[in-house]
Amino acid sequence: MAVTIDVKADILGKNDAVAEELRNLFKEKHVFVLDLMGSPGCGKTTLLEKTMQALKDDINMAVIEGDLFTSKDADRIDRYGVPVVQINTAGGCHLDAPMIKKAIENIDLDKLDLLVIENVGNLVCPAEFDIGEQKRAVVLSITEGDDKPMKYPLMFKLASIVLLNKTDILKFCNFNLDGATEDIKTLNPGVEVLPVSCSLGDGLKPWLDWLREMVRSVK
Amino acid sequence: MAVTIDVKADILGKNDAVAEELRNLFKEKHVFVLDLMGSPGCGKTTLLEKTMQALKDDINMAVIEGDLFTSKDADRIDRYGVPVVQINTAGGCHLDAPMIKKAIENIDLDKLDLLVIENVGNLVCPAEFDIGEQKRAVVLSITEGDDKPMKYPLMFKLASIVLLNKTDILKFCNFNLDGATEDIKTLNPGVEVLPVSCSLGDGLKPWLDWLREMVRSVK
Repeated sequence: MAVTIDVKADILGKNDAVAEELRNLFKEKHVFVLDLMGSPGCGKTTLLEKTMQALKDDINMAVIEGDLFTSKDADRIDRYGVPVVQINTAGGCHLDAPMIKKAIENIDLDKLDLLVIENVGNLVCPAEFDIGEQKRAVVLSITEGDDKPMKYPLMFKLASIVLLNKTDILKFCNFNLDGATEDIKTLNPGVEVLPVSCSLGDGLKPWLDWLREMVRSVK
Repeated sequence: MAVTIDVKADILGKNDAVAEELRNLFKEKHVFVLDLMGSPGCGKTTLLEKTMQALKDDINMAVIEGDLFTSKDADRIDRYGVPVVQINTAGGCHLDAPMIKKAIENIDLDKLDLLVIENVGNLVCPAEFDIGEQKRAVVLSITEGDDKPMKYPLMFKLASIVLLNKTDILKFCNFNLDGATEDIKTLNPGVEVLPVSCSLGDGLKPWLDWLREMVRSVK
């Protein structure tokens, strides 16, 4: 099916042009934009909940929620009083830049410091699409196994920060924290790797400090 | 990006023709072919290990392993003395029928009762591609959360059997077994849903009985 390669190049080319346009707009508006990725159920929305609790009084945040169907995650975000826009991909496996361009029509960028885009739960396809973000964060649940970075390398190669989540149940899971960290740093030497428990809120200080620093860096 | 829709229809059309050709071949050879799907780290390979231990003396099995990169899973299967063919998709997010057509050149179908195809770890894209299988099985780890069936419905709609895995750590996870089972049966009334712990081998008897019955049904 050689046709898929040409088509993919064409789709990616169009996507990248819109992504670049978005990145310029976000820069002009001094908004830090983060693409938050990871498998289904790795803890992205729980991380967002804890992040909003900690930052929403100091930092003007908004969230874009990407889902195939349902607004379950957007409903969770909405409870915190943070503006949230739901994108339903109708079965599509990732967000792309044109979807973000449409979503931000509903967000006042002039008042914003931080826009977090929670991508579709998928360790493969979202990594291939630039959506105009400045940085990417990946959440890997330790219940997924420590072989995942090497099996899904692109996701980890392009991340600025990786959170190894659900450490509260580490002793029940056969997961080598040091080994996984080493694999991630082999793929991506400059990346930060943080063991955390989003449900308990453990280990999140370096994550929150990093986000604050990123927000400062675009002012 | 309306172009993607037309292209997708074209790709799926070509894929389906090859899948139908494969399904006819498998029927003629009396081989039961199962497409095994689920998120990264949900326990597909561990389920396969337990299945081989239980069945390999009675049933002639072979396995096709789909991965983006690495042969980590195929190496695990190889230890059990079951023939295994590795497909590396080089970053591709799912297996397709032409990949299976090429892989079975390395498998002697005349001697085979059961071929299990472990798809790429992904709760989205593999569901869209017919690979010539007779049935589909989905593994959902309870660590992924009980909202996943409704968020990723296609995967569950097209399955004949769903295994809710990692019940050994159920008490540490906020997962409603009855609610998730009800959601899956709402999407797909005829499906079997089995709570299991693949690592402990708990609850696997109905799964093994189902596989034996499926193998008998194609003889």
